[in-house]
Amino acid sequence: MKVLITGGAGFLGQRLARELLARRELKGTDGQRQPITELVLLDVVAAPGPDDARVRIEVGDIAERSVLERLIDEKTSAIFHLAAIVSGQAESDFDLGMRINLDASRLLLDVCRMRGHKPRVVFTSSVAVYGGELPEVVLDDTALNPQSSYGAQKAGAELLLNDYSRRGFVDGRVLRLPTISVRPGKPNAAASSFASGIIREPLTGEKAVCPVNGATRLWLLSPRKAIECLVAGCEIDAAAFGNRRTVNLPGVSVSVDEMIAALRDVAGDAVAARIEWKADERVEKIVGSWPAQWDTSRAQRLGFAGDASFKDIVRAFIDDELGGTIPA
Amino acid sequence: MKVLITGGAGFLGQRLARELLARRELKGTDGQRQPITELVLLDVVAAPGPDDARVRIEVGDIAERSVLERLIDEKTSAIFHLAAIVSGQAESDFDLGMRINLDASRLLLDVCRMRGHKPRVVFTSSVAVYGGELPEVVLDDTALNPQSSYGAQKAGAELLLNDYSRRGFVDGRVLRLPTISVRPGKPNAAASSFASGIIREPLTGEKAVCPVNGATRLWLLSPRKAIECLVAGCEIDAAAFGNRRTVNLPGVSVSVDEMIAALRDVAGDAVAARIEWKADERVEKIVGSWPAQWDTSRAQRLGFAGDASFKDIVRAFIDDELGGTIPA
Repeated sequence: MKVLITGGAGFLGQRLARELLARRELKGTDGQRQPITELVLLDVVAAPGPDDARVRIEVGDIAERSVLERLIDEKTSAIFHLAAIVSGQAESDFDLGMRINLDASRLLLDVCRMRGHKPRVVFTSSVAVYGGELPEVVLDDTALNPQSSYGAQKAGAELLLNDYSRRGFVDGRVLRLPTISVRPGKPNAAASSFASGIIREPLTGEKAVCPVNGATRLWLLSPRKAIECLVAGCEIDAAAFGNRRTVNLPGVSVSVDEMIAALRDVAGDAVAARIEWKADERVEKIVGSWPAQWDTSRAQRLGFAGDASFKDIVRAFIDDELGGTIPA
Repeated sequence: MKVLITGGAGFLGQRLARELLARRELKGTDGQRQPITELVLLDVVAAPGPDDARVRIEVGDIAERSVLERLIDEKTSAIFHLAAIVSGQAESDFDLGMRINLDASRLLLDVCRMRGHKPRVVFTSSVAVYGGELPEVVLDDTALNPQSSYGAQKAGAELLLNDYSRRGFVDGRVLRLPTISVRPGKPNAAASSFASGIIREPLTGEKAVCPVNGATRLWLLSPRKAIECLVAGCEIDAAAFGNRRTVNLPGVSVSVDEMIAALRDVAGDAVAARIEWKADERVEKIVGSWPAQWDTSRAQRLGFAGDASFKDIVRAFIDDELGGTIPA
């Protein structure tokens, strides 16, 4: 079977690729576990790896129909659609956000529909689909009320995937990811970028700026658990989802102060002291509109598992990205 | 000011046009009540009227950008977007439903955005955005879970209107209409057609077939009140909507038995006796899945009013469509 990862050069795409290559097989179209013979990594830049005979690196614009028609065929049994314009950029460049977050998602579904073989399609979505006045605890069936263009575009893509699945054009699943922390690499344009930066930078000897106040609550998932959830999301039987293909993944609800306390516990005072506070109203407004507490019992019943604590998340980052030790 | 009605040849579009012409003025772009100098009725067929110097009848495909660019300019202060592909057809012709219910709605918003004057835009939506397991009483913030392509497309258009409004591209409002009863004219293929037919046909001397059992509950709004709600929906100050531009309009929750009792009270035994019962499993299944009870306190706070009772709805039909008397 062939597997396609869009956003394959990104950090989640790269980790997912390595995980799939290590697993060697996956459930796809027919629900039977099959060997992965080809893993296509599509992105606007060439994916740096992994170096493996099964990997095919493709550069292209996912909003171009011809690109998707070239890369999705009847052997493409599973598609992980991770490509996205992040929240900050979708807010500053409305057209680009619409083109990638909504139009490209629809195009992908349409090309699958045209092929007619009903591949498993995993979309990632976001807590940004929620907003406005929210209940104390957010459920899978709490109403969507996005307060950002990114959230509106993701919510629109969710609706499409659900309807294309209901009609039998694809066998789709949408996973609403908590904010991923700790991301490796550089800060990015996402409003939530600091949720990784305030841990990652201090651990690698650099200063970090926290743009929100310490009481701000976040809903977090480690990259490690996110990858496990993506694979599980592809392999779960369609019937288990009932009439709702969208699921809120389990996260850890934690305040910024608690995150820093966990960093201090794991890495010491000197590391935690590298965080500076500088309020950014724009970031506070976007992040403050996201819910911080969730009932994810449905996700758990479906077999998804998150992290046990934020300390575990910090330790997982040190293990996975820093080789198990904190640089002096 | 100019006003545009899409679906202007339809039954609601025609009634709305007559109402606006009679009112002579409307709040639009700047929130000030202004005289209506031009009322554009766009549809795929020529609207039959009204015969008034202010009316401009236009035939065109609403999914064509050039049509909307021709009809929406900086003087277009208010737009009522009623054009839609109905549920049955959107299910049988997926591409047509997507094109009209989703793409044309987006195009309309985009042309407004390009013009830059932030017109008031009123979208109509539907109870079909709900589905699956529903609470006993449906609220404005009950989660959407459409189980039809029509519902998914309407829900997608709702999301777009909300985001375009949040960004200041338009001043939009979405009204989710209850089932409209009593519609004039002929029965149609809609599952809810009987909700008008079992009143309209007996009142005009014809037999009607009721395809569902008498305990089936419906959520109804008269054409008269629907038109009042459309006008109110345009005129309410944007700030009153808060961060949610979508509102469930108030309806009357009534069983089929209660509908027939009201008909008997208003028009007598002989009229009510023209209803025959013939169960239609397909219709019963569809109608039985619709929520029948709603909390519409938000709509009421916003100033929307429904009908006081189903008897009022029957009397309104006799007044508006039968000239105030029941044919012998």
